[in-house]
Amino acid sequence: MKPDTKTREQYAFFFPIQTRWADNDMYGHVNNVTYYSYFDSAANALLMQKAGFEPKRSPRIGLVVNSTCHFLQELSYPEMIEVGVAIQKIGNSSLIYDLAIFKNNQNLAAAQGQVVHVFVDRITRQNCPIPDSIREALQPYKSTDSACA
Amino acid sequence: MKPDTKTREQYAFFFPIQTRWADNDMYGHVNNVTYYSYFDSAANALLMQKAGFEPKRSPRIGLVVNSTCHFLQELSYPEMIEVGVAIQKIGNSSLIYDLAIFKNNQNLAAAQGQVVHVFVDRITRQNCPIPDSIREALQPYKSTDSACA
Amino acid sequence: MKPDTKTREQYAFFFPIQTRWADNDMYGHVNNVTYYSYFDSAANALLMQKAGFEPKRSPRIGLVVNSTCHFLQELSYPEMIEVGVAIQKIGNSSLIYDLAIFKNNQNLAAAQGQVVHVFVDRITRQNCPIPDSIREALQPYKSTDSACA
Amino acid sequence: MKPDTKTREQYAFFFPIQTRWADNDMYGHVNNVTYYSYFDSAANALLMQKAGFEPKRSPRIGLVVNSTCHFLQELSYPEMIEVGVAIQKIGNSSLIYDLAIFKNNQNLAAAQGQVVHVFVDRITRQNCPIPDSIREALQPYKSTDSACA
Repeated sequence: MKPDTKTREQYAFFFPIQTRWADNDMYGHVNNVTYYSYFDSAANALLMQKAGFEPKRSPRIGLVVNSTCHFLQELSYPEMIEVGVAIQKIGNSSLIYDLAIFKNNQNLAAAQGQVVHVFVDRITRQNCPIPDSIREALQPYKSTDSACA
Repeated sequence: MKPDTKTREQYAFFFPIQTRWADNDMYGHVNNVTYYSYFDSAANALLMQKAGFEPKRSPRIGLVVNSTCHFLQELSYPEMIEVGVAIQKIGNSSLIYDLAIFKNNQNLAAAQGQVVHVFVDRITRQNCPIPDSIREALQPYKSTDSACA
Repeated sequence: MKPDTKTREQYAFFFPIQTRWADNDMYGHVNNVTYYSYFDSAANALLMQKAGFEPKRSPRIGLVVNSTCHFLQELSYPEMIEVGVAIQKIGNSSLIYDLAIFKNNQNLAAAQGQVVHVFVDRITRQNCPIPDSIREALQPYKSTDSACA
Repeated sequence: MKPDTKTREQYAFFFPIQTRWADNDMYGHVNNVTYYSYFDSAANALLMQKAGFEPKRSPRIGLVVNSTCHFLQELSYPEMIEVGVAIQKIGNSSLIYDLAIFKNNQNLAAAQGQVVHVFVDRITRQNCPIPDSIREALQPYKSTDSACA
């Protein structure tokens, strides 16, 4: 049931994040909730930086319909972390991201999981196909392994 | 793959939460990450209010090792929400919570998922058995159905 | 330099908030930053509930240009708090809020401060007059004392 | 009343921070509250990196008793920012930080303010003198101007 720990080679895009004082909870480590914030920031950064996605203007936006995370190591402010992202699957309207969090100088993930975006019309919130421009731009970031997180 | 939508009857403890301005992201709805914060606050409130757990003093603490959430409806500040909690399983050192978020006056979940706590020694972070006092106090909050979220 | 501690009588609108697990930082109390989130949620709730303000649609929106807070007592999840709000001054385009945070069953503020909104055009971000409808609706919430926080 | 806008030369320590998706609120810009989180992370980083402060172990900890911020420019995920820090005053038990937030490649502050730490005993929360080791280590970071933010 416990997944194989992921390594940096399994991800195609890396997004560095500075942890913050408020990320640590009363147990003195980064709160589990905050890991999802790292995931969210990295997945959207891939869309914005590599696929020209503009979250404030795009008529089609990606809403998270499902997410999951396995927490393998504790993190703590003030350390820097990196989020690895790979695209596991590009469906008609859904996009599955494989994500992991790496401590500096570690090759094994401190956390790993998945986030699923469904593209919807910004106004009506009805599902819509992923724009071709995004579909093509994400090809180089597709996951090379078939294992589930 | 899409789970059956849960209803209030499937939960045994309810924790009301006032949404906040900052919960809404640039899409004008509560950010997906924040749902996990609602889960975290409700699961720990059950431990504290019903099982005498003291997170600042207890020699054994519950760390989240896995979590997942299905997002079914958008939420938005300033609405009030309620988190439903039930205990799906009490293992030797792990505790699986079934959780769902309900809008006021709705019986169908706006989001549903699971969080797994593993109890560890506060200092060494080694796994340890769930204290008997917690195990017994949580019996009335066990989930009555066997379906997975 | 230390201000007189405020009391509930000095506020005209109260907004209850459930603290959350993640509000507590590694010192085991609510992080100072989070107090401003309570302020923000309460000031905007006053605008929305009493002055018909619609943050997602209004052509004129209130942006915070200045804020300050004196922290007088520690707060800690899972306690409930109440935010008191009064309008200190309604200028041409700016709105000064007096705000305080009260623990349940306490009449003395646990924190007190001010937030200044300047109304701007949603698109151009140029200053604009506070709409008359808001100006009038806020009259009953004006601060009755002249002391600064 | 509006302060002179600060520049990078007025700060002695810089702390880079990656903004996050959840930093943006429903107005599409970084929520005002989050600026204080940037301040908090930078002030404590100075204490930890330059003055050997260990927040999880130190018998004396710095609690924020007052803070203020002037918001001069909007910020927005995914931009990188830098927080400038200078020590305005080292009192017996209190430490006043001058802080500002800079956009990349800008010399004028996008926000500026102050945070006051009072050192207290971790257990009793009674005020106590700032440790000499911290007092000395912070000398190189003292503010060179006398103007208030």
